Amino acid sequence: MRRIDSAVVHEQNEQEFKFLQTDFNALGEKLSRDGIDIEAITKAAEAFQIAVPSWGTGTGGTRFARFPGQGEPRNIFEKVEDCAVINELSGCTDSISPHFPWDKVDDFSELKQHAAAFGLKWVSVNSNTFQDQPGQAVSYKYGSLSNTEKASRDLAIQHNLDCISYGQQLGAKSLTVWVGDGSNHPGQQHFQRAFERYLASAEQIYKGLPADWEMHLEHKMFEPAFYSTVIQDWGSSILAAMHLGPKCKSLVDLGHHAPNTNIEMIVARLIQFKKLGGFHFNDSKYGDDDLDSGSLQPYQQFLIFNELVDAEHRKEAEFNPAYMLDQSHNVTDPIESLVTSAIEVQRSYIKALLVNRDALYGYQEANDAIMASGELKRAFNFDVAPILAMARYRKGAAINPLKTYRAAKYRQSMAPVRPRDPKATGSGII
Amino acid sequence: MRRIDSAVVHEQNEQEFKFLQTDFNALGEKLSRDGIDIEAITKAAEAFQIAVPSWGTGTGGTRFARFPGQGEPRNIFEKVEDCAVINELSGCTDSISPHFPWDKVDDFSELKQHAAAFGLKWVSVNSNTFQDQPGQAVSYKYGSLSNTEKASRDLAIQHNLDCISYGQQLGAKSLTVWVGDGSNHPGQQHFQRAFERYLASAEQIYKGLPADWEMHLEHKMFEPAFYSTVIQDWGSSILAAMHLGPKCKSLVDLGHHAPNTNIEMIVARLIQFKKLGGFHFNDSKYGDDDLDSGSLQPYQQFLIFNELVDAEHRKEAEFNPAYMLDQSHNVTDPIESLVTSAIEVQRSYIKALLVNRDALYGYQEANDAIMASGELKRAFNFDVAPILAMARYRKGAAINPLKTYRAAKYRQSMAPVRPRDPKATGSGII
Amino acid sequence: MRRIDSAVVHEQNEQEFKFLQTDFNALGEKLSRDGIDIEAITKAAEAFQIAVPSWGTGTGGTRFARFPGQGEPRNIFEKVEDCAVINELSGCTDSISPHFPWDKVDDFSELKQHAAAFGLKWVSVNSNTFQDQPGQAVSYKYGSLSNTEKASRDLAIQHNLDCISYGQQLGAKSLTVWVGDGSNHPGQQHFQRAFERYLASAEQIYKGLPADWEMHLEHKMFEPAFYSTVIQDWGSSILAAMHLGPKCKSLVDLGHHAPNTNIEMIVARLIQFKKLGGFHFNDSKYGDDDLDSGSLQPYQQFLIFNELVDAEHRKEAEFNPAYMLDQSHNVTDPIESLVTSAIEVQRSYIKALLVNRDALYGYQEANDAIMASGELKRAFNFDVAPILAMARYRKGAAINPLKTYRAAKYRQSMAPVRPRDPKATGSGII
Amino acid sequence: MRRIDSAVVHEQNEQEFKFLQTDFNALGEKLSRDGIDIEAITKAAEAFQIAVPSWGTGTGGTRFARFPGQGEPRNIFEKVEDCAVINELSGCTDSISPHFPWDKVDDFSELKQHAAAFGLKWVSVNSNTFQDQPGQAVSYKYGSLSNTEKASRDLAIQHNLDCISYGQQLGAKSLTVWVGDGSNHPGQQHFQRAFERYLASAEQIYKGLPADWEMHLEHKMFEPAFYSTVIQDWGSSILAAMHLGPKCKSLVDLGHHAPNTNIEMIVARLIQFKKLGGFHFNDSKYGDDDLDSGSLQPYQQFLIFNELVDAEHRKEAEFNPAYMLDQSHNVTDPIESLVTSAIEVQRSYIKALLVNRDALYGYQEANDAIMASGELKRAFNFDVAPILAMARYRKGAAINPLKTYRAAKYRQSMAPVRPRDPKATGSGII
Repeated sequence: MRRIDSAVVHEQNEQEFKFLQTDFNALGEKLSRDGIDIEAITKAAEAFQIAVPSWGTGTGGTRFARFPGQGEPRNIFEKVEDCAVINELSGCTDSISPHFPWDKVDDFSELKQHAAAFGLKWVSVNSNTFQDQPGQAVSYKYGSLSNTEKASRDLAIQHNLDCISYGQQLGAKSLTVWVGDGSNHPGQQHFQRAFERYLASAEQIYKGLPADWEMHLEHKMFEPAFYSTVIQDWGSSILAAMHLGPKCKSLVDLGHHAPNTNIEMIVARLIQFKKLGGFHFNDSKYGDDDLDSGSLQPYQQFLIFNELVDAEHRKEAEFNPAYMLDQSHNVTDPIESLVTSAIEVQRSYIKALLVNRDALYGYQEANDAIMASGELKRAFNFDVAPILAMARYRKGAAINPLKTYRAAKYRQSMAPVRPRDPKATGSGII
Repeated sequence: MRRIDSAVVHEQNEQEFKFLQTDFNALGEKLSRDGIDIEAITKAAEAFQIAVPSWGTGTGGTRFARFPGQGEPRNIFEKVEDCAVINELSGCTDSISPHFPWDKVDDFSELKQHAAAFGLKWVSVNSNTFQDQPGQAVSYKYGSLSNTEKASRDLAIQHNLDCISYGQQLGAKSLTVWVGDGSNHPGQQHFQRAFERYLASAEQIYKGLPADWEMHLEHKMFEPAFYSTVIQDWGSSILAAMHLGPKCKSLVDLGHHAPNTNIEMIVARLIQFKKLGGFHFNDSKYGDDDLDSGSLQPYQQFLIFNELVDAEHRKEAEFNPAYMLDQSHNVTDPIESLVTSAIEVQRSYIKALLVNRDALYGYQEANDAIMASGELKRAFNFDVAPILAMARYRKGAAINPLKTYRAAKYRQSMAPVRPRDPKATGSGII
Repeated sequence: MRRIDSAVVHEQNEQEFKFLQTDFNALGEKLSRDGIDIEAITKAAEAFQIAVPSWGTGTGGTRFARFPGQGEPRNIFEKVEDCAVINELSGCTDSISPHFPWDKVDDFSELKQHAAAFGLKWVSVNSNTFQDQPGQAVSYKYGSLSNTEKASRDLAIQHNLDCISYGQQLGAKSLTVWVGDGSNHPGQQHFQRAFERYLASAEQIYKGLPADWEMHLEHKMFEPAFYSTVIQDWGSSILAAMHLGPKCKSLVDLGHHAPNTNIEMIVARLIQFKKLGGFHFNDSKYGDDDLDSGSLQPYQQFLIFNELVDAEHRKEAEFNPAYMLDQSHNVTDPIESLVTSAIEVQRSYIKALLVNRDALYGYQEANDAIMASGELKRAFNFDVAPILAMARYRKGAAINPLKTYRAAKYRQSMAPVRPRDPKATGSGII
Repeated sequence: MRRIDSAVVHEQNEQEFKFLQTDFNALGEKLSRDGIDIEAITKAAEAFQIAVPSWGTGTGGTRFARFPGQGEPRNIFEKVEDCAVINELSGCTDSISPHFPWDKVDDFSELKQHAAAFGLKWVSVNSNTFQDQPGQAVSYKYGSLSNTEKASRDLAIQHNLDCISYGQQLGAKSLTVWVGDGSNHPGQQHFQRAFERYLASAEQIYKGLPADWEMHLEHKMFEPAFYSTVIQDWGSSILAAMHLGPKCKSLVDLGHHAPNTNIEMIVARLIQFKKLGGFHFNDSKYGDDDLDSGSLQPYQQFLIFNELVDAEHRKEAEFNPAYMLDQSHNVTDPIESLVTSAIEVQRSYIKALLVNRDALYGYQEANDAIMASGELKRAFNFDVAPILAMARYRKGAAINPLKTYRAAKYRQSMAPVRPRDPKATGSGII
């Protein structure tokens, strides 16, 4: 089952293919001089997958306002449809990362089937204990897993256990836990006691983890708490993961760090200590801006993949990170942003594959900094667009995804089908 | 007319006064050794006023969630009532800064009277062109004063002119213009053309300014735009203010700067170039956190007042900045936070008055850095609480405002009077 | 033996004592209302000690320039003399933290006696593997403990073992290890291999540690390496300390963190995991500015001591951090800065003692954020200068240290005694 | 006259040319589909020039240490020789930016001839008032142009006038003024008075400017002053430039900004207000790290050139910025770093030329953020290495500069010719 007519994709691809083949051949010849087989790299591109977050398919917002677009999905079934579009165009997003209770349904087998019909599967379940739901018995206003009130902690623990259950029904294998717990005032929270409560609650969740599941802890410097956050950095995250056990690892969201932080080194540390669980990919300039992946700092994204590919190359033990996008799209069509971002992440991966690791190790041993730096830049400077496009073409996806998407007039077709709730407002929260 | 029974204040003050008098006398004796007359300083404390933002009286939120409290004001009339409480307790907040269209009413004279009955007046009108209002003809999604579409710019201009009109009816004398205009992607916006459109729109507003009004431009580094913002810093702000004319000045919000920025020096620059219009006071650690004033960086707040008092001392021309709070209260009772913040700002002002300016100038001329630094610290280290409390006492406000407020059980009494809209949700925007 | 004539101190103190007694009594009365015994607090102030870094007694510099002052100490014996002055004035700096090879002498027993004659002892030995010494066989240009070359690593290991030996002769009980190892270019260094080499080298040092010694690892975000640093944050530091063993802990330098970092929470985490080894106190606005402690962010310093006093209060196990100053004085007389800084750190400690911990815990449990925050501010706002001054007075130190120091004309008297090396230049390194 | 034997360059180029021609043709064909003439772009690459800073040819250092390399230039004549090497390899660095008094000679005509013999000319003279020179009558310890002492100010003014004179003798046409003036302690300096003194001093220099010269003011957030700096940001810089007159403009050093600052927008603002004087190119992660240009944030460098090329495209008035490198090389051979950096800057320029400006303007007008962003990325993702290499080849420079340089064994040949001063130490300043 498809959402974008194959004929439209085919027609668009026909217009592009001739030049793609020319460019692909030229690049292949160039890479072959370095002993790189473009077909092997293209295979790697075809195999690359990154999950789409269900919540990313709707227009996001800031605390100031939300400006919704037309034809937005109104529930998880419609979100799945948009995820199908994204995968049909990008060819590298065959899974969905759900968020509960937002994506809760009565019949998960129906939802699983709905996705499967589009060739989509489910990964990494996200719990939500940073919002109160209507009718909720106790509040998360003062925290969830680390709340001073046992009732709030218990509610948050149970919600995470429920998320595991939902995920099991969908076929997922990991739970991502991000909490906004923290404080806005010095003194509001006892740092140690709050962390102890967090750990005790997390133990309860960890106990409920199926044998083949992992639990990923996501750290964040600030927001929604503006003075302190319980899992504020990778230090607290890895200590918690070590405390909980081998099935618990750390998850890195690129926008959750202090200014100037060397994120690729944090990735390397987590790999070294067998605690890299996965990523939430996005880009940012100031805070947790949740901008399109690689849109601002493509070289940083490449350097992160340089670490990941290096770990693969070294056959690092217990290395199997999960890749997800996590973005908020305020001024673009979410489908266009998610397609673009998935390909940008894939681009970094492919470029990192082009690094000559033995040469690099040699420069590193010899402290030949300019050649080591140059080896990374050499790989980064390749224009690998033909490889990415060829991988898409071979998988039946779009050589030029945005052009194809617009030609298909998908969003316009959704406007009448998905009328906006007239009561839904665009007012932010200040 | 009062919102907090005088008897409650009186009763509470009676419990505190004896020790206050003791402490006041001890401090007076100590200050007199430095040639400082505590009575003159106390008079200055009594004269100090800072405006309360109408929107600050409700519980704020983040893009993730909002956790409303009980008995929150539901409209501008109820907000005025809470502002009255704040002034009755603090004795230093006799004015309200309104925000339109949030505070728009049919009959402004009724609103003015309502406030006047509590001894409150209106200052600094804030326009809002960062949200679309229900039924709005064109959108601010891609900007307001700098939008590429003339219709959106015209709407924003007209709204600002309307704000002036509302403000005139209320007796205000200045318009604060903050726009969220900017971009989330490199290339999305042409920096120069966007700024040119901003200036052209602002000229239209400036033309509509009554002769005795000022227009204040508020800069902000980021949020809601996460790649670029049109008025991103004091540089763009002062250039715009210089372009527009002498009635236009810059307004400083403490949370709107890059990490590590020396804000007190920006204040000094704006004073020097006759362009300091006013302040939005708050505190922050990471971004525009809108935390309680002085709650994190009291010494920075003192250093800002050191510049302000110095300008007063030097009788700097065209120096008459407007002081407003601008905070978002997510985990406290807004009244308690606003009372506390107003007094914290007042505290910085009073401490800055204790600096021996002639001594300081002498150290500065002699490059005696340790003594210059020490002179500021000497003033900062004084415990001026007795002065602040005595000023409140003499004005009929509360010696211990929070204790008095809680004794009055004001918030509890509002809960049944101001039932929450059952449709109002606490869901944030992600 | 003294460096500042007791008569001068006595004469100066006589001028100040009467008012000090008045202020002390007034404060005592005030504190007694809160159930606090000023005598107990003053005893705590008398007991408080912080070490002076030997290198801090000379004028520092930047990479651009150094502007030396007159009468600077030219060797460790003269530095000890200046440390004696600092302790005679401050009454709270009875120990010296040496730096090798800068402070290396042929006869350590002579040096120990020299210090002991002034009542000074030796603590926390600092090794230096970030500079090459004249005639050094191999270089630290590309790192020390993590260098790719075994010869450089071995040299660095041996130097640290030598430092332990020197420290043992002086009576010290801990070794502080800070390395500048890192890289300036992406790719220059293999993150994991560099950290593995660091750990292997550190193991060798740890093995050489006497039974009653501790080893403290100092992390730093950047400088002298500007892309990556091997021990870049508390995460890498605590993982290394955990790897090495119970005698290894982390040391916090306040200037070594990313912008906006909540340092007091890091302190709390290190306490919780029994890994807080000690502090290098200073202040900063931008980077490792090494400014006078508490000169810019006194409230942050207080919040750090709030954690330390809280840990004491809770009788936290294995809690015994070492306190040292670590500053560079470019525009002041180092003695004046070090005296001032020691007292500023002491001030934070004393204020933190005034927090009513039971009340605070109650507010924390009740999520009464404004009262919790207010309890910290209440303690911070006390003017504890009379307690600090009385503690100094009672120990024979100076009520007004800077005034006394200047009256003694110590620096002027050193100018002819310590003529500057005419070959020493003030040129920086760019 | 040459420093690298043409035969070596020729021999190396022969090995590379065949593949270069292949890649150049393939790229030319690809660009032609977008209507871009690769020959025109290659001409632009050939015309591109960026100045080399004389001081960059020596190994830099940090305040902690300096690790000099072999065969370093010991004076300005030897530095010119190394600049010749850089230009012979890169083909885009035909000018030198000198620094006084470091580069002061008795006979400037001899120096000018020396450079001319290598085809090098002189641009942008840099003054140095942040260091005291041996025997200097008064000190810059407390500032230069803004010093409280008239004698220090006068010395700094005269030095700048001398620099103009030296520059005239060398044929330069602009003076770059960077001062480290500022303070390390709150209160140390009166912000307004310091800026007034700065402006008054700068007026004296401006008066001495020849009719065809420009004066460029370089701002910097911090270092060597760590609390405040007189020209701390582009706001103070442009206000000073506006105050001084039309021949005074602002100069942007990429490493001199607050964390997260959008530098490309500052560039756009300076262009708009006719005040962009020039650049000091380098890269940085934390502060003024002075790393190799484009080595960390190549996309940011591209975005800056996007603004510059856009201004050219729009034929913006008074737009003629000067391009200089300004880096400190601590772990590489300075020649290798400077060659690499010059080419990286050139790369950004060439990529920016590939942006389809009319298409971009269309997307901007239509608020089509994803297409606007994509247009920039499209240009950035091109691998323009063949254009850069062909431009070098056609000018007789090296297709592969580093390989050619190493083949020529230039540095090794300098080691015996330029023996290191045995008294020169590698000790830093802490």
